[in-house]
Amino acid sequence: MEKRTEIGSIGEFGLINRLAKGFTAHQPWTSIGIGDDAAILDANGFQVVSSTELLIEGIHFDLSYTPLKHLGFKVVSIALSDIAAMNAIPAQLSVGIGLSNRFSVEAVEELYEGIKLACVEYKIDLVGGDTTSSPQGLIISVNALGLVAQDQIVKRGGANPNDIICVSGDLGAALMGLQSLEREKQVYLANPEMQPELNEKNYVVMRQLKPMARFDMIHELKELGIVPTSMIDCSDGLASEILHLCQASGTGARIFEKNIPIDDETYLVATEFSLSPLTAALNGGEDYELVFTVSQADFDKVNKIADVTAIGYMTDIPNECVLVMKSEQVVNLTAPGFGPQ
Amino acid sequence: MEKRTEIGSIGEFGLINRLAKGFTAHQPWTSIGIGDDAAILDANGFQVVSSTELLIEGIHFDLSYTPLKHLGFKVVSIALSDIAAMNAIPAQLSVGIGLSNRFSVEAVEELYEGIKLACVEYKIDLVGGDTTSSPQGLIISVNALGLVAQDQIVKRGGANPNDIICVSGDLGAALMGLQSLEREKQVYLANPEMQPELNEKNYVVMRQLKPMARFDMIHELKELGIVPTSMIDCSDGLASEILHLCQASGTGARIFEKNIPIDDETYLVATEFSLSPLTAALNGGEDYELVFTVSQADFDKVNKIADVTAIGYMTDIPNECVLVMKSEQVVNLTAPGFGPQ
Repeated sequence: MEKRTEIGSIGEFGLINRLAKGFTAHQPWTSIGIGDDAAILDANGFQVVSSTELLIEGIHFDLSYTPLKHLGFKVVSIALSDIAAMNAIPAQLSVGIGLSNRFSVEAVEELYEGIKLACVEYKIDLVGGDTTSSPQGLIISVNALGLVAQDQIVKRGGANPNDIICVSGDLGAALMGLQSLEREKQVYLANPEMQPELNEKNYVVMRQLKPMARFDMIHELKELGIVPTSMIDCSDGLASEILHLCQASGTGARIFEKNIPIDDETYLVATEFSLSPLTAALNGGEDYELVFTVSQADFDKVNKIADVTAIGYMTDIPNECVLVMKSEQVVNLTAPGFGPQ
Repeated sequence: MEKRTEIGSIGEFGLINRLAKGFTAHQPWTSIGIGDDAAILDANGFQVVSSTELLIEGIHFDLSYTPLKHLGFKVVSIALSDIAAMNAIPAQLSVGIGLSNRFSVEAVEELYEGIKLACVEYKIDLVGGDTTSSPQGLIISVNALGLVAQDQIVKRGGANPNDIICVSGDLGAALMGLQSLEREKQVYLANPEMQPELNEKNYVVMRQLKPMARFDMIHELKELGIVPTSMIDCSDGLASEILHLCQASGTGARIFEKNIPIDDETYLVATEFSLSPLTAALNGGEDYELVFTVSQADFDKVNKIADVTAIGYMTDIPNECVLVMKSEQVVNLTAPGFGPQ
């Protein structure tokens, strides 16, 4: 009988590692292959950064509470966030869409209004794509291209022991936004007359519906003359991202619960749902903040940026990634996509 | 009431034109936006060509007769064919896949075996992608990057009146392969004991299952010092591609039935199915041959390439694209995606 391994048993990252085996580079201008946020193509000394995302209705978004215009903006932010995580500046976008016949031309135009808004916000150009039919639901594929000078590229694998681990903005809000939207959907399904109660949750809801790629941070770092030693964007939750940085850098990490930035509204909503705001920050994902490391020498400079928080440091014990709780208890960081550690 | 326009009523190309409205360029290095085979990014004088494809099970492929390995090879060929159509050389590939839980790790590995074969065949590197779950079926998005020198770029819109229209290889075979596979599927569904009868149809079946992007042709043209005045790849059928070239170039076209290259096996299979081989060539699609124009001065050189056929010429009557039949009757070329002309 043919062998059948369930994908769930090895996890997404396990699958990617298995698939990547046996691919060897043929091109002299390929400088990063599989395994970082985005690919890099060396075009005559200039670095072109390329990132690909695939979003599927029913998996990545629920159109019953996601306005198409916000969705258009969000898919661009997601693709660009990987470009930011390489310390690159975004330039171009290609969008492929698969549409079932439930979508009208006006609906697709609404989606593209959001894409257009994002192109203006991020100063990038929509340059191409593919439009096709889909047997079921909406499918969106996005490819983003960015540019970065050779000496400014930041990879996942450049962190050293004692480097400071920093995050931009705050974490866990996007998951609380999702929870709020999901609950309103259930309320609506039970009683369509009920008015949504999202007024008090504007911040977390917008973090879910319309996230921003943090190029403001990339520019700020550049102005201060800081090149992070490693960087990743926070799409799967802080724990997963720290594990990625450590795995690629051959380091361990020690982060502190008391330092993890969580917005007051995230706390309030989490309490309302009887959820742990810490878990939301560690495993929630979709915040698209930047997680990066800087050498200790750069710490004073980084500390001047209002929207950056130092949450811990890298250690010399490979893959030992721990969280020091407020109780001073020390626990291992784990993340779903990593499969059995 | 909100207006609802069905996508079918304006056609794929009509939809793309509507969506493209209002997007303006923000980046100095964007040299071609929406509306050609691939996008071009000017990286410090070096041209990076980018092409995106989205393929969806049940729309673009039927896994009941498409081996996953062939499918892997085919998706790469399709994405690269657009790179060839810009006269560029392929360099890198990103692949996003959406998988329902019916797919095992081994099945995905089989798909990637085909992608790997294509990477070796085309000497390109798989550099990234995205792996996610899908509520139904297999979804594949592919982004390909290529490189081309500034003075070698060939767009759709460069043809002049009197330029010779050429095609590589032969046309219509992929559709006949599809018809053969579809019939065997029906036979199998009716009686699973029946053996498939595809021996006599090896050429057309392989043209459907494992098409090639014609970089051999790009290299041959380069060696002969020929830069086509316009070029497109034949994915939607010859008629559609001629209409695209004429629309972009502001020319008309006159092509001749007697010159359209059709393989003997395509003729035989078409006859068996009571289909017109000419219709297969004009509207079949998926042949991924190159359709290009050269100036009359280059005609003698192009004529030396064994696998190229001159099928007609460009005229100075914008958008008047006609086919001269063997009967000398003259008919207008039409193509489904173009909507009402």
